[in-house]
Amino acid sequence: MALVTLTTDFGLRDPFVGIMKGVILSRAPQARLVDLTHDIGPQDVLAGALVLRHATPYFPAGTIHVAVVDPGVGGSRRPLCVETTAGLLVGPDNGLLSLAAPPAEVRGIIHLTDERFFLSPRSATFHGRDVFAPVAAALACGTPPAALGAPADDLVRLDVPEPHREAGAITGRVLYADHFGNLVTNVPESALADLDRGRLTLRAGSTVLTGIHGSYASVATGHPVAVVGSWGLVELAVRDGSARAALGLDVGDGVRIEIG
Amino acid sequence: MALVTLTTDFGLRDPFVGIMKGVILSRAPQARLVDLTHDIGPQDVLAGALVLRHATPYFPAGTIHVAVVDPGVGGSRRPLCVETTAGLLVGPDNGLLSLAAPPAEVRGIIHLTDERFFLSPRSATFHGRDVFAPVAAALACGTPPAALGAPADDLVRLDVPEPHREAGAITGRVLYADHFGNLVTNVPESALADLDRGRLTLRAGSTVLTGIHGSYASVATGHPVAVVGSWGLVELAVRDGSARAALGLDVGDGVRIEIG
Amino acid sequence: MALVTLTTDFGLRDPFVGIMKGVILSRAPQARLVDLTHDIGPQDVLAGALVLRHATPYFPAGTIHVAVVDPGVGGSRRPLCVETTAGLLVGPDNGLLSLAAPPAEVRGIIHLTDERFFLSPRSATFHGRDVFAPVAAALACGTPPAALGAPADDLVRLDVPEPHREAGAITGRVLYADHFGNLVTNVPESALADLDRGRLTLRAGSTVLTGIHGSYASVATGHPVAVVGSWGLVELAVRDGSARAALGLDVGDGVRIEIG
Repeated sequence: MALVTLTTDFGLRDPFVGIMKGVILSRAPQARLVDLTHDIGPQDVLAGALVLRHATPYFPAGTIHVAVVDPGVGGSRRPLCVETTAGLLVGPDNGLLSLAAPPAEVRGIIHLTDERFFLSPRSATFHGRDVFAPVAAALACGTPPAALGAPADDLVRLDVPEPHREAGAITGRVLYADHFGNLVTNVPESALADLDRGRLTLRAGSTVLTGIHGSYASVATGHPVAVVGSWGLVELAVRDGSARAALGLDVGDGVRIEIG
Repeated sequence: MALVTLTTDFGLRDPFVGIMKGVILSRAPQARLVDLTHDIGPQDVLAGALVLRHATPYFPAGTIHVAVVDPGVGGSRRPLCVETTAGLLVGPDNGLLSLAAPPAEVRGIIHLTDERFFLSPRSATFHGRDVFAPVAAALACGTPPAALGAPADDLVRLDVPEPHREAGAITGRVLYADHFGNLVTNVPESALADLDRGRLTLRAGSTVLTGIHGSYASVATGHPVAVVGSWGLVELAVRDGSARAALGLDVGDGVRIEIG
Repeated sequence: MALVTLTTDFGLRDPFVGIMKGVILSRAPQARLVDLTHDIGPQDVLAGALVLRHATPYFPAGTIHVAVVDPGVGGSRRPLCVETTAGLLVGPDNGLLSLAAPPAEVRGIIHLTDERFFLSPRSATFHGRDVFAPVAAALACGTPPAALGAPADDLVRLDVPEPHREAGAITGRVLYADHFGNLVTNVPESALADLDRGRLTLRAGSTVLTGIHGSYASVATGHPVAVVGSWGLVELAVRDGSARAALGLDVGDGVRIEIG
C-alpha cells in the first residue's frame, strides 16, 4: 500500500490537485494520498524545497513524494525521479527536490523520459497531471524507477544561504515565514552546541532579543522571543502573535547572534 | 472500494466539509474520499460546474462526484443523482451538474425523494450533510441510483456562452480565472484546428497578443502569452505572473482571435 | 481500521498538518485521516472547541479526534486524552476539548505522561507532531487510553456565554461566524420550543428581523434572515450574502429575541 504525498503551488481553489489525485487513483487505486501543502507561493521553488526537506523525514521509508512548483513547465527543464535513502522524490529538475536529497543520501536519479508512463495527449502546461501524477502512480504500483527513464548524474541544486560563524557572532538569514508569522532562519541548533544559550543576543533589524529559549511560552503574550523551532532552526516568534508583522522582518532579512 | 469526490463552496475554515466526510464514512466506511475543491466562490454555480466538467474525466469510471453549491437550499430546487457514462453526479438541480453531464452522456436522472436515505432530522440549511452525503454513502455501498428516488426527464442546464466564428475572427469570453491568475476562455482548441496558430492575433481589452503558443515558457518571465491550457481551452497567461492582475481582465470579459 | 480526525490552527500553507499525518501513518499505516479544519484562527480555542462540538457527533463511534490549538505549547498545560461516549479526544488541556466532552458523556480522562509514546527528541514548539500525532497513532493501533498516562479528574472547561430567558425576551450572543458570513448565536432551537417562531423579533445592533425561519430561501436574495441553522442554533444570515459584512456584527455581539 504505497503512500504518495503531494506538494504544489496550485492552491486549493482550482481542481488541479484533485485532478492529479484522480489520475493517481485511476492507475494506482490502492495508493494512500497525503497533502503536504498546495499553498507554496506561486513559483517559490525555495519554499517548496524547504517544505520537502523538513516534512519528508516524518514519512515512512519508501514514501513517494510528488512536488510540482514548476515555472519552467513546457520548457527544457527535466522531469526527475530521485531515489534517496528515505524514499522517492518526483518533480521538475529546478532545485525543488534538492534540499530533501542531500548528496550523501541520493541513491539514484532518473530522467523521466519514457512517455509510455505519461498521459496521452500531454499538455505543455500541466505536467503535474500529465507527467508527475502518472509516474507517481507507476511507482506506487511497484514500477522500479529505472524503468521510467534514463539514469542521470546530477540534479539542479538550490543555492541556499549558509550561516557564518565569525569571532563573537553567528550571522544568518530568514529562510521561511510560516502561517503564524514565525520567522525561521538558516541557523541550526548545532551551531549553538558549545554556547550558553541564555547569554546569546539575537539582532535582526531593530529587534534585540536576549537568549535563545526552549518554547514560545518562555515569554508573555505579545512579546518577541527567539527559540529553536520544530525544524531544528533558530526562529523569531511573537507569543500568540506574528513576528513577521510585529517585527517588520521577512524572508531574506539578516540575523546576527552575538555570543557572550 | 468506491471513490467519492467532493466539490463545494463551503471553504475549509469551517468544519462543514469534515462533517460531510463523517457522515459518508459512518455509513460507507470503505469509501475513498477526494476533495476537488471547496473554494468555489460562494454560490458561484458556473465555477463549480466548470470544475466538475474538467476534473471528472480524470477519475475512474463509476466515481461518485458530490457537488454542493446550493444557494437555493431549503427552497424548491430538486436534489438529483445523474448517472453518466463516466460516473455518478450528486447535487442540487441548479445547473451545477450540467456541464459534466452533456446530454449524449446521460444515462439516467433520479430525483432524490426517498427520505429513508437522508439524515433525520434534516435541516433546511445544510443538505450537504443531511441529503447529499448520506446519498453518496448509499451509492458507495452499492445502492442503485434508481432506488433513491423517482426518475426525472431533465436537469437544469447552465447557459454557458459559446464562442462564435465569423469572417476573419473567433469571438469568445473569459469563463474562469484560476489561482495563478490565468484567464481561461470558452474557445476550444478544436476551433483552431484549421488555422496557423502562429499567425493568430488575440485581442482582449487593451491587450494584443501574437500567436497562440504551446506553453507559458514560450515567452520571457513577466510577459503575457496566449496558450492552449490544460483544459483544452485558449488561456491568457503571464509567465510567472498573473494575467488577471497584469492585464486588467476577468471572468466575463470578451476576447477576439483574429485570423491571418 | 481506525478513523482519526484533525483540527488545528496550523493553516494549510505550511507542511505542519502533513507532517502530523506522516507521523500517524508511520506508526498506524491503516489509519484513515479526515481533516475537520486547519483554519481555526491562530490560538482561537473557542472556535476550535465549537468545531469539535458540532462535528464530532457525525463521526462513527470510536473515532479519534486530534485537536491542536495550543498557545501554551511548551508551558505547563497538560496533554490529554478524553474518552467520551462518542469517541476519543486528544489535545491540550486548555478548554479546546471541553465542549465536545460534556460532563455527562465523559468516561475517562488521561493525562498523557508516558513519553515512550512521544517522538524523541521532542520539541517544545510542536506537540502536534511530537506528542499528539504519535499518541493518536497508538490509539489507532488499539492501545487503550489508560496505557498512555495517568488518570485525571477533570479538564479545563471553557466559559461559554449562555443565553438567558427573561420576561418577554431571550438574550444571547454571537458565538461563531462562518465562511459565508453567517452569524451563529448561542441560542438553541430548544429555547424556542414553546414559542410561535413567526411572531418573534430578533434585534442585533441596528438589525431588526421578524420571525425565525426554516431556511435561507425564506427571503429574497440580499435580504437578512434569522434561521435555525445546521448546528441547531439561531443564526443570522443574508441570503446569497454575508450577514457579518452586511449587518456589521461579529463574534461576541449581543442578540435579543423578543417574544410576542
